[in-house]
Amino acid sequence: MHNSASASSLGPGGLDLRHTFFTPIPGTAPPSSTKRHTKITVVGVGNVGMAIAQTILTQDLVDELVLIDAKEDKLRGEMLDLQHAAAFLPRTKINASLDYDATANSDLCIVTAGARQIPGESRLNLLQRNVALFRHIVPPLAEYSPDCMIMVVSNPVDVLTYAAWKLSGFPPNRVIGSGTNLDSSRFRFLIADHLQVNAQDVQAYIVGEHGDSSVALWSSISVGGVPILSFLERQQIPYEKKTLENIHKEVVQSAYEVIKLKGYTSWAIGYSVASLARTLLRDQRKIHPVSVLANGLYGIEGGDVFLSLPAQLGRNGVLGVTNVHLTDDETKQLRDSAKTILEVQSQLGL
Amino acid sequence: MHNSASASSLGPGGLDLRHTFFTPIPGTAPPSSTKRHTKITVVGVGNVGMAIAQTILTQDLVDELVLIDAKEDKLRGEMLDLQHAAAFLPRTKINASLDYDATANSDLCIVTAGARQIPGESRLNLLQRNVALFRHIVPPLAEYSPDCMIMVVSNPVDVLTYAAWKLSGFPPNRVIGSGTNLDSSRFRFLIADHLQVNAQDVQAYIVGEHGDSSVALWSSISVGGVPILSFLERQQIPYEKKTLENIHKEVVQSAYEVIKLKGYTSWAIGYSVASLARTLLRDQRKIHPVSVLANGLYGIEGGDVFLSLPAQLGRNGVLGVTNVHLTDDETKQLRDSAKTILEVQSQLGL
Amino acid sequence: MHNSASASSLGPGGLDLRHTFFTPIPGTAPPSSTKRHTKITVVGVGNVGMAIAQTILTQDLVDELVLIDAKEDKLRGEMLDLQHAAAFLPRTKINASLDYDATANSDLCIVTAGARQIPGESRLNLLQRNVALFRHIVPPLAEYSPDCMIMVVSNPVDVLTYAAWKLSGFPPNRVIGSGTNLDSSRFRFLIADHLQVNAQDVQAYIVGEHGDSSVALWSSISVGGVPILSFLERQQIPYEKKTLENIHKEVVQSAYEVIKLKGYTSWAIGYSVASLARTLLRDQRKIHPVSVLANGLYGIEGGDVFLSLPAQLGRNGVLGVTNVHLTDDETKQLRDSAKTILEVQSQLGL
Amino acid sequence: MHNSASASSLGPGGLDLRHTFFTPIPGTAPPSSTKRHTKITVVGVGNVGMAIAQTILTQDLVDELVLIDAKEDKLRGEMLDLQHAAAFLPRTKINASLDYDATANSDLCIVTAGARQIPGESRLNLLQRNVALFRHIVPPLAEYSPDCMIMVVSNPVDVLTYAAWKLSGFPPNRVIGSGTNLDSSRFRFLIADHLQVNAQDVQAYIVGEHGDSSVALWSSISVGGVPILSFLERQQIPYEKKTLENIHKEVVQSAYEVIKLKGYTSWAIGYSVASLARTLLRDQRKIHPVSVLANGLYGIEGGDVFLSLPAQLGRNGVLGVTNVHLTDDETKQLRDSAKTILEVQSQLGL
Repeated sequence: MHNSASASSLGPGGLDLRHTFFTPIPGTAPPSSTKRHTKITVVGVGNVGMAIAQTILTQDLVDELVLIDAKEDKLRGEMLDLQHAAAFLPRTKINASLDYDATANSDLCIVTAGARQIPGESRLNLLQRNVALFRHIVPPLAEYSPDCMIMVVSNPVDVLTYAAWKLSGFPPNRVIGSGTNLDSSRFRFLIADHLQVNAQDVQAYIVGEHGDSSVALWSSISVGGVPILSFLERQQIPYEKKTLENIHKEVVQSAYEVIKLKGYTSWAIGYSVASLARTLLRDQRKIHPVSVLANGLYGIEGGDVFLSLPAQLGRNGVLGVTNVHLTDDETKQLRDSAKTILEVQSQLGL
Repeated sequence: MHNSASASSLGPGGLDLRHTFFTPIPGTAPPSSTKRHTKITVVGVGNVGMAIAQTILTQDLVDELVLIDAKEDKLRGEMLDLQHAAAFLPRTKINASLDYDATANSDLCIVTAGARQIPGESRLNLLQRNVALFRHIVPPLAEYSPDCMIMVVSNPVDVLTYAAWKLSGFPPNRVIGSGTNLDSSRFRFLIADHLQVNAQDVQAYIVGEHGDSSVALWSSISVGGVPILSFLERQQIPYEKKTLENIHKEVVQSAYEVIKLKGYTSWAIGYSVASLARTLLRDQRKIHPVSVLANGLYGIEGGDVFLSLPAQLGRNGVLGVTNVHLTDDETKQLRDSAKTILEVQSQLGL
Repeated sequence: MHNSASASSLGPGGLDLRHTFFTPIPGTAPPSSTKRHTKITVVGVGNVGMAIAQTILTQDLVDELVLIDAKEDKLRGEMLDLQHAAAFLPRTKINASLDYDATANSDLCIVTAGARQIPGESRLNLLQRNVALFRHIVPPLAEYSPDCMIMVVSNPVDVLTYAAWKLSGFPPNRVIGSGTNLDSSRFRFLIADHLQVNAQDVQAYIVGEHGDSSVALWSSISVGGVPILSFLERQQIPYEKKTLENIHKEVVQSAYEVIKLKGYTSWAIGYSVASLARTLLRDQRKIHPVSVLANGLYGIEGGDVFLSLPAQLGRNGVLGVTNVHLTDDETKQLRDSAKTILEVQSQLGL
Repeated sequence: MHNSASASSLGPGGLDLRHTFFTPIPGTAPPSSTKRHTKITVVGVGNVGMAIAQTILTQDLVDELVLIDAKEDKLRGEMLDLQHAAAFLPRTKINASLDYDATANSDLCIVTAGARQIPGESRLNLLQRNVALFRHIVPPLAEYSPDCMIMVVSNPVDVLTYAAWKLSGFPPNRVIGSGTNLDSSRFRFLIADHLQVNAQDVQAYIVGEHGDSSVALWSSISVGGVPILSFLERQQIPYEKKTLENIHKEVVQSAYEVIKLKGYTSWAIGYSVASLARTLLRDQRKIHPVSVLANGLYGIEGGDVFLSLPAQLGRNGVLGVTNVHLTDDETKQLRDSAKTILEVQSQLGL
């Protein structure tokens, strides 16, 4: 299924307008093979995959965007719908394919595909089915784009990022999970909304396992450069542990709430992943809380495990993990999460 | 349902961080009432409405965005999903409400709500139900924002734009249907794809009734300023009427095709309407083929009728209609469309 | 001198293309008087004023941009040079005038005009000449745009912002000096460059008097949310007071260095002020270190004095000043600066 | 002179913050050599070169920007001034150098350097001095970036683009002169201003030699897709040849006027060249009137000559020249220009 297949309807023997319309100047040389363009592949064209694809397109991040999915009709429909916006956007090649050869030489492959839970199915069984799905997705991505970065968005994101790493054979700096980047954004929004400030002036990380056991780094929260906890202490405002915990609880709840209300989440994860894609492809060296190979960091032990930490990202993927200060309690929560994830992983046969 | 209602969870008696964190400078005066911000309301949070809302948000067009729908859960879910992206976007107030008072003082109200066809229902019956729906939407919009512009996206767009005009009591320059703006974009994409040029270098209008009877203005197609028809004649390339008609047929088919493949259209209409919103609110004075009150133009007679013509748009809505040259055949098609629409309208009791 | 004066060269009796080209639709109503557009005036078209004007234009902040200067030739040349870029930019009305009536109803007036030092002239004498200049600039700005915000960029910025406040009769929240916003940006660049991180991930404020006596708030520096000073202490890296002071010295020097090397500064101040303009006009509620009326804050006493503090800015100008923690030494420096400025001010007869 | 040289002032033995602040994750692999970033070199940091550099930076086109000039102080001053804006812009590596090794692997090299006319000097003598200057600029650019595209902005642009082509040894599709791209923009502005439309809705080409003998293609002017000449004929508005010629004369005059008024042109050429850079680097396949190798096209004969024609541009430079319809008169003017340029070129010994 090609971009132009649908369009070149003028048929065989049709008039070759292009060659009449344009004349090459004398001595024109073909393009050098060293000239590359920027290419992103999105695997999975569900609500999450498409919100990501559309936001990447709007933000003019790439020269080529490829959509991959197993459902041919849906895939072609989404491709055409994006292509029809051509007149409103910078020129971007938009392609869609059932086959992975269309993904060749991608700079970044974003995996959003995932199996849905069958009523009564155990979480482990669902995870095993997702790992089985990744066995069909990740190896061909790695084969066709051996230098690419892989970003995993499918859930449970930490274990599946580990799976993508093992299945790709890539160095760990090139395999990243979207992790708690969105949780952190929700956290920043709630704090900003409470203080009536711009969310971009709020620094706040949620790290660890994406989901119920995520860890809010209270000591790292600052607004306009002012650390909130020490501010509260200095101002002798009684530090209401419970209130702050409520904000974190609301973050954890908010994904569930959106899913309960509209059936799925899409827009925020779309912006979140597009933001990560920009930092990676444009070598922005920004710090984002994302799922990275974490063993050895913050005393995490017991084996290879991915969970979210504030990582500096750039054209070579994970450039380093920030040495944020954790309280003893935060460290313990992080290690407990790592242990839980490792136990699950041991049952996957990867 | 307010933006901050969900967020201000710190509760009564909670710590008033804001007032401790910021001190007003001495002598601060309240804002003048003459200071306005830019506000858009989107009525209907289905796939079309949300693609429009999200694209407007990404393109940083407004200071406030209000979503209106009758389905409370879906509405709140969509609001939260957009709000959670705050950290990735310029600060925009995002609100959602079941009540129209939240829309007060909008600059532009975009109506995407529409009833779905019941199996076996006649087109006229569906239309009558949509008009009934508009009786609950348009008057409160007009009441709360008496100076706003109204953009109708719901289908059948031409008749419903007429309905919105009648129900609003607005001057006709402030009531516009998205009309064939998207059809024209698809047309430009297909021509650009065939010639391997940038779609923004292609000028091409589809006018008239949005849908099967739309009229492609062949004589107005130009690429990079070169009128295509006279180019073909001069180059003595046989003018293949059939080939060109095929492109137009493909445009007409493409909406049906996308709906057949993915169930609905969303992305392209989102970009299309966001583009119109920019032209209107930022007074860009650009020419777009949109549905406008057309009687008296191009010899269209018989009563008040809206259909798409190349209109110059700006802060006062429709600034004028371009005097494009039409062939006799094109003029006849336009008048026939007007006649058909007028017949339908006469059965609506507006 | 009008935007269109230069262009409408087709002369009297020339062909009225517009009225033939466009036909208004029947029943078109004139625009409502409540519909306003966004307008910025820049006073002074030297290197600083023009870098500001051009950056504002590129970032698509306004619907109308007005340039004011006393040098007619230079003024008209700059206006034409910007207008000639129309095809590459969103449509913006660009005007230039010797008279202040062209500034009417501006949302923001940016004053960059200033007298140049005559060899052998005392600083006080220069300042008195600048205050005399402001007597011709600020009152007409305030008269023609009684609801506007005024941003002073001319140096010495703190005293001249005070002068603008007195001469305008405006409430203090609507009179702001660009102050140390640029110094802080240079500071953030140097720290980011040293750590090889994105400057947007660095929070760091320089406050107080713009220039040699500015105060670096060491305790407020954080990178990716990690406070640097406490980080250094925890990591038991010896806190090298001298090294950090060197970075601040380099910031103070850098303005002098750029002026020595290229004769003036322009680009960075252009981006800095355009960034402030965006926060103000789009009500972004971001925190910027800018010159604000500071008496009563941080124990500053002795009279009305403007100096830079981290202020939250929005559509109503200064929304509040952030309660950053200052060390005793930092507080003392701030108060000393205030005293110095107050002494200078007392000699101005304002 | 390096970006970081000025910044890394913490000195020898200073604290290595970065390595304490960030920990690489285990197994991190170095970047692949195939990962490239986008790089532009601007030669000449005068008003034109800097307006181009700053506009490219604002529009976020590149990952690295290199400035080259022979004046060390001015060069370093401009570099620092741009770097100080880091906090307001996406992270871009900004470098400046006296040596061409800093330009290695550029994607696009923009040459704005040029000698100034000495009072009493003949145009031919000035041109010979400029060619001598290009002998020191173009060969090292071509050596360090053998796959780059070269864009010549220096005047007389057509002859100097020919010189750059000869001196580079590049295929002609990779050597382009900014030519009449800016003249065409001025033309579009004047027409748009007269009709009160958006300049982006106006198509109009000025081609041929940049300067007094440029050729306005009247038959190619269209507004919103409506060809103006045939519109005037159909509307039986007397075609006032003189009026239209006046607009063209005003375009030719406007460069002289701006230079007379402000001493040089800068902003409009900055936007113009940044627009060309975007089309080239992002493979936008847009049509721009630029100076290209023109022999054999439109019956131009007599040898290798560069002059402006509407060319489709993309990642491989000039993709083709549009077959616009020229009147006999327009063709004759074009051929006369070619002849004049060829005569001048024959005296240059290239």
